Amino acid sequence: MRIQDQVKEHFKFKVVHQDKNSGARAGVITTPHGDIPTPVFMPVGTHGAIKALQMKEMEEMDVKVLLSNTYHLHLTPGSDLVAKAGGLHKWMGWDRPILTDSGGFQVFSLQKKSIKEEGAEFRDQDGKTVLLTPETSIGIQQNLGSDIMMAFDECIPYPATRPYVKDSIDRTHRWLDRCINAWTNPKQALFGIIQGSEFDDYRKECLDELIARDLPGYAIGGVSVGEGPDVMEKVVKYTAPLMPKDKPRYVMGVGNPEDLFMLWEHGVDMSDCIIPTKFARGGTLFTNRGKIRIKHRNYRRDFYPVEPNCSCYGCQNLTRSYIKHLFDSNEILGAILATAHNIAFYKSLADRAREAILEDRYLDFKQEFLAQYLKEGHG
Amino acid sequence: MRIQDQVKEHFKFKVVHQDKNSGARAGVITTPHGDIPTPVFMPVGTHGAIKALQMKEMEEMDVKVLLSNTYHLHLTPGSDLVAKAGGLHKWMGWDRPILTDSGGFQVFSLQKKSIKEEGAEFRDQDGKTVLLTPETSIGIQQNLGSDIMMAFDECIPYPATRPYVKDSIDRTHRWLDRCINAWTNPKQALFGIIQGSEFDDYRKECLDELIARDLPGYAIGGVSVGEGPDVMEKVVKYTAPLMPKDKPRYVMGVGNPEDLFMLWEHGVDMSDCIIPTKFARGGTLFTNRGKIRIKHRNYRRDFYPVEPNCSCYGCQNLTRSYIKHLFDSNEILGAILATAHNIAFYKSLADRAREAILEDRYLDFKQEFLAQYLKEGHG
Repeated sequence: MRIQDQVKEHFKFKVVHQDKNSGARAGVITTPHGDIPTPVFMPVGTHGAIKALQMKEMEEMDVKVLLSNTYHLHLTPGSDLVAKAGGLHKWMGWDRPILTDSGGFQVFSLQKKSIKEEGAEFRDQDGKTVLLTPETSIGIQQNLGSDIMMAFDECIPYPATRPYVKDSIDRTHRWLDRCINAWTNPKQALFGIIQGSEFDDYRKECLDELIARDLPGYAIGGVSVGEGPDVMEKVVKYTAPLMPKDKPRYVMGVGNPEDLFMLWEHGVDMSDCIIPTKFARGGTLFTNRGKIRIKHRNYRRDFYPVEPNCSCYGCQNLTRSYIKHLFDSNEILGAILATAHNIAFYKSLADRAREAILEDRYLDFKQEFLAQYLKEGHG
Repeated sequence: MRIQDQVKEHFKFKVVHQDKNSGARAGVITTPHGDIPTPVFMPVGTHGAIKALQMKEMEEMDVKVLLSNTYHLHLTPGSDLVAKAGGLHKWMGWDRPILTDSGGFQVFSLQKKSIKEEGAEFRDQDGKTVLLTPETSIGIQQNLGSDIMMAFDECIPYPATRPYVKDSIDRTHRWLDRCINAWTNPKQALFGIIQGSEFDDYRKECLDELIARDLPGYAIGGVSVGEGPDVMEKVVKYTAPLMPKDKPRYVMGVGNPEDLFMLWEHGVDMSDCIIPTKFARGGTLFTNRGKIRIKHRNYRRDFYPVEPNCSCYGCQNLTRSYIKHLFDSNEILGAILATAHNIAFYKSLADRAREAILEDRYLDFKQEFLAQYLKEGHG
């Protein structure tokens, strides 16, 4: 039996409800490590750890899935070690679903790399030459044991010429066949990635190539690479509705709350981004009334919670004044509380969106949320 | 009624059991924010936060009391702000007992300061001159609302000449009377501090002065200031047994596990130190077989818990290999897990000592623990 058919026993997706007034949909992804209600936002744990957050807290917040990075774990500590430790889930103490990227995005964001038919060559932190190929990427991801693996692709920089894009996507398709050949574990789903930059015809061409290979899920890649919100929306608005309805639709590396609403509206089920965790460490906190910069002097005597409607530990027990003080005093606890809050906020946002979809009021919810979120403009 | 008598309604101490074979004793301190079984080790939360640890975790580990610093909170954010926030307990989200130091230790460890009859003058981080006096120190501590306040004293540097010590302790006694005069809240206990450097007669003189003032508790100060373990033990061994049996005995700023056993043997009930938290952030973890430096290459493939008999989250769920990886990758989570572990280890050590005291086997426990702890010498 083809691996694409074997995987169907372990990995399923079901649309639970299609919003009547938009492309938004609510679904459930079933994986060997549990179910993921969608739409879902995936926090990023680059080095096999969400920065400043413990896995027990992720569980307490009922986060269902996280993303970890093939590229970083390949360099340190190496996926052989993680395999010896019993796989990434066991090693990091997280028994819920994990998605791993392919390393493509990280490699292609390096200054010094060379792209060959064989794969992508770059220098690691010690100056040693490393070759990442479709086979090594899948090998690493199988060592890690993630529930969802991503195909090794070229993340095309923006802007790119049509000839560059055509060459790149052709190679990415050849790489995809090598990824599929290297894929041996039917408990891990392989997602294909749609590239094509801003060109509708190339996006369509990529998608058709992916569909022909009958993969368990499909992703839009090559967005959030400097093209700006308008081009991003144009690409998503064109591509997402063409993607098979019965497979999860994932947009990689997005984004702000306003971006997430755009994705969901066009029927995207999954996304990931470092924004909530990275912003947290810098003191930017998300609230229903916009972002706040907690270090600002206004919060010195502000004895209200960061977001009164948030269920995170900090919002239930502590004030803006105290969290500002932690940042002022360079206390690690500031980053810890801010990270937990932002992750809780993103989790709640996706949950609220799902509820709205189930009740056919997604567009109303989007409008209400954004009206309040964008109005105050604290950020 | 004198404040010393009023406080007796809110603050009590009881010796539960005196070990038959040593000076060690088990007791209970009662405060307005709950009971503290002794001997107890107090983690240090300098800026109103235990570095890298959330208060909910302190509660989960059943830590009963913490120490916070008058000096640091006076400079940032100022105790008026904390008072306005409802006091330190509420502000930091900790409803168990808090002990605050007087600022004396921090001021006297500054290079540039001048000691006058009025108080101690120094420059803050912005170069502004700050005068800390017995009255301001108690005022700050009453703003913070700690359960136990420390008298403002001079922490005498080591070594010191007899004339220097005599002058200093005479002034410290005059300051103590001013502290008592400034002390108005009977829900906060004021502890006096015994100085006297390495001189038995001066230690005795200080103690007598304190006893004459009938304070709720007494502390040995001016140790762990560079005098080394032998002089420290000499001072504690001489002073602690002379201290009233019916009042808590506190030794400030100590220390390593081996130091704690020395304190407890001589009948000390309380101590505090930054060692477990500071060492944790540097990657030094305490185990029953000695300290380990988790960054060492030996732990790369070590899939055992840091300390198999520890109940902390990391030891229950994660391996040395993973925690080493977190330190290698500069992940904040490394400091978080290491701090929780070291605090849990110190807590367990004091709990085990108390149990041994209750069963009259303190010296056996000490010997057994130290034989294993010091033998392996990982540190």
